[in-house]
Amino acid sequence: VSRKKLLILAGDHVGPEIIQEAIKVLGVVAELRPDIKIDIEHGLIGGSSLDAHGVPISDQTLENAASSHAVLLGCVGGPEWEGVPGHLRPEMGVLKLRKRLDAFANIRPCRFFAPSLIDRSTLKPEIVAGVDFTVVRENCGGAYFGAKDEREDIGSDLWVYEKAEIERCARVSAALAMQLSDCGKKRVVWNADKANVLASSRIWRRITHETFSREFPELKLKDQLADSMAMLLVKSPTKFNGIIHTDNTFGDILSDISGGIIGSLGVLPSASISSVPGQGPCKGVYEAVHGSAPDISGKGIANPVGQILSLALLLKYSFGMAEEAVRLEKAVQIVLDSSDHQGLGIRTPDLGGSASTKEVGDAICAVY
Amino acid sequence: VSRKKLLILAGDHVGPEIIQEAIKVLGVVAELRPDIKIDIEHGLIGGSSLDAHGVPISDQTLENAASSHAVLLGCVGGPEWEGVPGHLRPEMGVLKLRKRLDAFANIRPCRFFAPSLIDRSTLKPEIVAGVDFTVVRENCGGAYFGAKDEREDIGSDLWVYEKAEIERCARVSAALAMQLSDCGKKRVVWNADKANVLASSRIWRRITHETFSREFPELKLKDQLADSMAMLLVKSPTKFNGIIHTDNTFGDILSDISGGIIGSLGVLPSASISSVPGQGPCKGVYEAVHGSAPDISGKGIANPVGQILSLALLLKYSFGMAEEAVRLEKAVQIVLDSSDHQGLGIRTPDLGGSASTKEVGDAICAVY
Ligand SMILES: CC(C)[C@H](C(=O)O)[C@@H](O)C(=O)O
Ligand SMILES: CC(C)[C@H](C(=O)O)[C@@H](O)C(=O)O
Repeated sequence: VSRKKLLILAGDHVGPEIIQEAIKVLGVVAELRPDIKIDIEHGLIGGSSLDAHGVPISDQTLENAASSHAVLLGCVGGPEWEGVPGHLRPEMGVLKLRKRLDAFANIRPCRFFAPSLIDRSTLKPEIVAGVDFTVVRENCGGAYFGAKDEREDIGSDLWVYEKAEIERCARVSAALAMQLSDCGKKRVVWNADKANVLASSRIWRRITHETFSREFPELKLKDQLADSMAMLLVKSPTKFNGIIHTDNTFGDILSDISGGIIGSLGVLPSASISSVPGQGPCKGVYEAVHGSAPDISGKGIANPVGQILSLALLLKYSFGMAEEAVRLEKAVQIVLDSSDHQGLGIRTPDLGGSASTKEVGDAICAVY
Repeated sequence: VSRKKLLILAGDHVGPEIIQEAIKVLGVVAELRPDIKIDIEHGLIGGSSLDAHGVPISDQTLENAASSHAVLLGCVGGPEWEGVPGHLRPEMGVLKLRKRLDAFANIRPCRFFAPSLIDRSTLKPEIVAGVDFTVVRENCGGAYFGAKDEREDIGSDLWVYEKAEIERCARVSAALAMQLSDCGKKRVVWNADKANVLASSRIWRRITHETFSREFPELKLKDQLADSMAMLLVKSPTKFNGIIHTDNTFGDILSDISGGIIGSLGVLPSASISSVPGQGPCKGVYEAVHGSAPDISGKGIANPVGQILSLALLLKYSFGMAEEAVRLEKAVQIVLDSSDHQGLGIRTPDLGGSASTKEVGDAICAVY
């Protein structure tokens, strides 16, 4: 029996509600794999950790995360913790966790996980139909982690990249691109930067090209300025089908635009991984893209799909259970696309349905 | 007679084609104001300057710009100059010009300049109808101008803001917001930053709030994280009706998303101004938002509207001719909305029409 240690950090507000469904789904998945034993532990992060321990993530939780095969993370934050000093904010727990695990590649697939979701996009269906790309965002470097200077009359962040940071991220983008042709997709990587203005972008672009031409000559690598990509993602999103490879700051914004394009934020998953997929054990933090939604917390109507699809990514990248991941994604699709009495799938209110968090979780378990 | 000195830098590719129409329109505008004498000079920028002088803008042109009341700028760049070293790139001419004039506030209105353009958006009409905001982007500071370190294995940019840079930009945003109520719009300013992660954003947010509460207590100032704004601009763009106040990097991306939302890039204008509007003479650089479109240059089909609407902004901010600006915007709207034999307005091919650059320019002159 292979044992996997999973740390669950439910976080704040709707976090625990959607995590509960993901755990239920994991139970069903695990039942069919008696050869794998999953040991679940729980910890605190974000506002809940701040309330309990005075920090958004404790050292013990960080160490626990580091000794786990993967972390399934809910979502953090809420109005209760709006006033706390910068370094104690709930989000800092997430940043510290990514940094501690060296989860340097943030992966966000951008596609319709169920065809019926196309209607939820604010873009015209003929524009978004067929959109299918994955944003790979460098997650442990750049301006967000660079040296900070914070004084009364001046504030700065160093937007810095070193060769090795870019190389390893390029390898993740390339590894994902290599998999594209397995599913009949084009093996294109779009590099987004501002090499026309930023020195950090110029090294980003140069090292990316060097890495690709040395290690992945069979891949097509194209450059697009990040501002222009932001515009084109809205104008013709399918242009970027493939992989978008980009730095921390641009990736933060570009992946959120991608979420906007898809429209149904509640279903979008993400993975932050610490090594190149397919090359040995890959630790990671898996979380839905959406926030902690204080406005609906406690009502039992939060959409658990983003969290459950994040679990699918966890199965694939950290537990080596790619088949289960595919099967889980398929179950989610069936549930969302199925027709209930309203002619809609089993969906929470954010997707126009009337199902509860639990009903969606149960349906996914039943279909799996 | 009041004399105004106008420097025209046509730039590359379609630049001269659209500038020519703007000059024609300016002639018509000036005819009705014999009390104002406009002295036009011409200079080179971008690839054209690089070819002629070996630099993307010469010191003489910079000085000429500094002694002008305003600069009307075409667009720069093209495949001919792709390979040149970073500091010689055509875009550097634009950045140097903005910096020389200290044109610290980049203003980009985001709305449908003609109701019939709503169809051109890739967003559903019910989502974009009524969108009407202006992005004010800090234009001379932040990461794009911060200290750079460029070596073999490392590259960095300092993303830095000082109090005074933020204050003056906040005053521009506030001045534009104050004007909103004159036209029956809500006086809301949305501040976009990443204060949850960046020190430069924290000072940006703090000084912005201090400036507003000290100097403009009557204005409503709201904060939105830049990543989340990027998503919401696609999901519900009218949410941000009013002014978006943001730094150089986020403004670069957010204003391009705004262009994407409107869809018809060819019509969008911009102004980079060097003082608070309404407080004495305001120098500025006025340019369309789109690029130099090498693929259609020389064909006489480039859309001159973005350039002509940039001229309208020039009249308003730098020449104190606000009435003429309104009249010119109205003329543009009539031309775009009018029905020709195809049931479309007089439009260039990028807007689905079949008119030439010149025909559009002529029509605007005729209607003015
Ligand atoms: C919570 C915040 C620090 C984080 C980030 O900016 O990285 C979030 O926006 C994200 O994109 O995961
Ligand atoms: C040309 C380039 C340097 C410029 C910028 O990034 O400022 C452009 O993208 C813009 O937005 O005006």
